[in-house]
Amino acid sequence: MTRSSAVSVRLDASDNVVTAIRALEAGTPVEGVVTTTMIPRGHKIATVAIPQGAVIRKYAQVIGYASADIAPGEHVHTQNTEFRNTEAEYEFSTDLRPVAFVPEAGRDTFMGYRRANGRVGTRNYIAVLTSVNCSATAARMIASAFGPEEMAQYPNVDGVVAFVHGTGCGMAGSGDGFDALQRVMWGYARHPNHGGVLMVGLGCEMNQIDWLLEAYGIEKGPLFQAMNIQDVAGLRKTVELGIEKVRAMLPLANEARREPCPASELMVALQCGGSDAWSGITANPALGQACDLLVAQGGTGVLAETPEIYGAEHLLTRRASDRKTGDKLVGLIRWWEDYTARNKGSMDNNPSPGNKKGGLTTILEKSLGAAAKGGTTPLNGVYKYGEPVTARGFTFMDSPGYDPASVTGQIASGCNLVAFTTGRGSAFGSKPAPCIKIATNSEMYNRMTDDMDVNAGAMLTEGVSLEEKGREIYELLLRVASGEQSKSEAQGLGDFEFVPWQIGATM
Amino acid sequence: MTRSSAVSVRLDASDNVVTAIRALEAGTPVEGVVTTTMIPRGHKIATVAIPQGAVIRKYAQVIGYASADIAPGEHVHTQNTEFRNTEAEYEFSTDLRPVAFVPEAGRDTFMGYRRANGRVGTRNYIAVLTSVNCSATAARMIASAFGPEEMAQYPNVDGVVAFVHGTGCGMAGSGDGFDALQRVMWGYARHPNHGGVLMVGLGCEMNQIDWLLEAYGIEKGPLFQAMNIQDVAGLRKTVELGIEKVRAMLPLANEARREPCPASELMVALQCGGSDAWSGITANPALGQACDLLVAQGGTGVLAETPEIYGAEHLLTRRASDRKTGDKLVGLIRWWEDYTARNKGSMDNNPSPGNKKGGLTTILEKSLGAAAKGGTTPLNGVYKYGEPVTARGFTFMDSPGYDPASVTGQIASGCNLVAFTTGRGSAFGSKPAPCIKIATNSEMYNRMTDDMDVNAGAMLTEGVSLEEKGREIYELLLRVASGEQSKSEAQGLGDFEFVPWQIGATM
Ligand SMILES: [Ca+2]
Ligand SMILES: [Ca+2]
Ligand SMILES: [Ca+2]
Ligand SMILES: [Ca+2]
Ligand SMILES: [Ca+2]
Repeated sequence: MTRSSAVSVRLDASDNVVTAIRALEAGTPVEGVVTTTMIPRGHKIATVAIPQGAVIRKYAQVIGYASADIAPGEHVHTQNTEFRNTEAEYEFSTDLRPVAFVPEAGRDTFMGYRRANGRVGTRNYIAVLTSVNCSATAARMIASAFGPEEMAQYPNVDGVVAFVHGTGCGMAGSGDGFDALQRVMWGYARHPNHGGVLMVGLGCEMNQIDWLLEAYGIEKGPLFQAMNIQDVAGLRKTVELGIEKVRAMLPLANEARREPCPASELMVALQCGGSDAWSGITANPALGQACDLLVAQGGTGVLAETPEIYGAEHLLTRRASDRKTGDKLVGLIRWWEDYTARNKGSMDNNPSPGNKKGGLTTILEKSLGAAAKGGTTPLNGVYKYGEPVTARGFTFMDSPGYDPASVTGQIASGCNLVAFTTGRGSAFGSKPAPCIKIATNSEMYNRMTDDMDVNAGAMLTEGVSLEEKGREIYELLLRVASGEQSKSEAQGLGDFEFVPWQIGATM
Repeated sequence: MTRSSAVSVRLDASDNVVTAIRALEAGTPVEGVVTTTMIPRGHKIATVAIPQGAVIRKYAQVIGYASADIAPGEHVHTQNTEFRNTEAEYEFSTDLRPVAFVPEAGRDTFMGYRRANGRVGTRNYIAVLTSVNCSATAARMIASAFGPEEMAQYPNVDGVVAFVHGTGCGMAGSGDGFDALQRVMWGYARHPNHGGVLMVGLGCEMNQIDWLLEAYGIEKGPLFQAMNIQDVAGLRKTVELGIEKVRAMLPLANEARREPCPASELMVALQCGGSDAWSGITANPALGQACDLLVAQGGTGVLAETPEIYGAEHLLTRRASDRKTGDKLVGLIRWWEDYTARNKGSMDNNPSPGNKKGGLTTILEKSLGAAAKGGTTPLNGVYKYGEPVTARGFTFMDSPGYDPASVTGQIASGCNLVAFTTGRGSAFGSKPAPCIKIATNSEMYNRMTDDMDVNAGAMLTEGVSLEEKGREIYELLLRVASGEQSKSEAQGLGDFEFVPWQIGATM
């Protein structure tokens, strides 16, 4: 995107529409044309003549078709745009743009924690994980025993964090829901941002710690311990023993040191929440640009939120590096159609009346705005919720759009950073992967300045280019990966946002 | 139940089987008969001849039919018992046992907080409620700002509690899941154990605070406040303002005083978790006995955990005070069959191999063991999850069996006490309603003595009668209602066990 004039933004050179950044009266010059009617803020203007039946292009993609001849300068919206359902015709790997990789010698680095297994952390926490809500208080009490004075002795440990949740029992012991929870447990147990792990269970829960350790071949050791309240004989003794175990881990975990690591070791969760009409115009494309920069370094971006790309999945299949990857994405879409239907909902991602008022015309335009966080490089992998992401480059992980559930999955999948765009303003933060927040508009950025790390609204209000904003985000990610506090970390967020996605009946 | 001999227990005078409290060799005398084979611990012994086709009776109820002639002293289990599905024949109100009400003048009292609306609290908390996970950290930070020194100035306030959860957005804005969440929110907002309430939201969530206040006609005032992070402009300011608001509530909430209130104002959540082979023999019938005593005082017991009474619902419909109440229960059973089927599960409550090894023979026997918590009085009301319980006496509220989700609904429904039986040993605790825990066996009671309030295992090991144990529980409930700390309160539990039941897809 560039701010193509003082009053509009263009998302790609090949687009035949641009977006008004404020309400424009009829007769306003825009990119060499003149508006023929009043154009509301956030709405689209044709920059060339678009004959009836021709494509309307934004994000370099087809967002709809002209349902009437559209003159240059004309307002392009529901009154002259139609949406044609193209899902019957999935194409695979037909829109692969080669990545201009930075040569290895010239690649950026950050200061990370390289673990014994070769993976790289951006933080060094000790995690107290819970298998079930029944051990939530025990885990919180263990973690909260470590005050600032004691922790000051271990400057290389970022904290002792309890990961507490509402599920783990009263559920089927097999199937999508159980598998997803076990992947999350495993993903946090093995996360490179954890220098030590204590797992705490009750003992009789469905989500058995022992099964997990067995299924995933996790070995216990000085920095990986597990215990059940029923075996230890009650809450108080469990808390005492847990504190002992963590206390023994601290000096060992404190031995970790940051060292220069290539940017290719970064895996960034791409997330949005509390979106507004500018999300798809400013913050999401800017994050996409940062993702492209990271991918050029050999790094990884993980897009998620399947319901929010619904309707544009056929554009992502064209970016799939191979047929199998594209088929996986189509499989997720089918699963969601079934999941929502079974739960008496629907996958309707069509623009709401509010979306339309804000300028979004078709489901494609809306979904492309969400997908813009993923940039333009090939889609190299598609993963289940919380499944380890093993591909490099741009990838996709299945998840709901709901922020804490989606980010929990992305972190379980291995993300060591989170980049979160927001328009309405979110106070989200995450552990163990730090989160930066990117405002879509300057008004909210200025109002919630304690919470926002980046103002993508400056693309509208200060003429900052997409390239500049993308680079700003990319460079901030490197600094935060090296230890700089994000705004959400400075605020102390991240202790209560661990929310494994619950699939299936609670019984 | 009485300990009918040194080696067995009898659950009703009309039963034709008793249960062995330890493994018995062949030839052991039991209630005037002699065992014909080895009887494993927890298994059943015929005390009379039961001809083929005749009923086998336990809890004064039919748990199955003899599939062969059974001799006195014989082991009664799957090899000679058959289960006949009787669901086609629901009967209504055919087994109503009149309640021997204690005359009003002679009724017990406890020291409670009588609220302006006439309802009575057993505790006096200030609640910080959250509409969505996105305000979880804000609520926790507000509540944790009130340390022991400040709270010492307000001796009549039991604490400032944050109720934080994982849901509230990424969900349908109507339907079973949304309605259930709003009922829980409302139930906590108006709970008589809350002297003041602050609701904290993000602003753009599906579960809007304003909708809730409007839908339920809740008026804001000095002791009922609401705020959204997006309106207040960020986390830090929200926390600061929230602390101010709670600080202003404290002196007002501290004006509440305990006064004598009739036991009829008690509403007890009947709950079990981590059950074992003794749950249905000791703790559950003893709690049922306590429930009968409470009902005789005009008080209320709320049974829940629909999946766990599955298979015995036709026995509860016979206890329904009227046809409409019975029909509601049948409706819940049908809803659950659909819910689990839609989620690719099933309502199978049949005894597992482990249950059978422990001595449970049929689904009826298992479900009756769970329902025994509800005693023997008529079923006066059936309610949705979190719906206000308005009937007195024995009632039923729909919920999963999963402890934190079920108790959250019972408290939202108005329960001001929780009685929780456990065999494996649970470290559960709840706020704002205090929880007492009842051990089914002495071994676990002795091992988890910090967590257990009552040892129903003494019915086996010390010959304590059902009547004595039931009265002990009832009297403890009165004392805890008056302010005596339960074990779980002394341990500081209840801050992390608020788990609204999530129904439907997370999107
Ligand atoms: Ca989103
Ligand atoms: Ca969203
Ligand atoms: Ca999201
Ligand atoms: Ca239960
Ligand atoms: Ca339960």
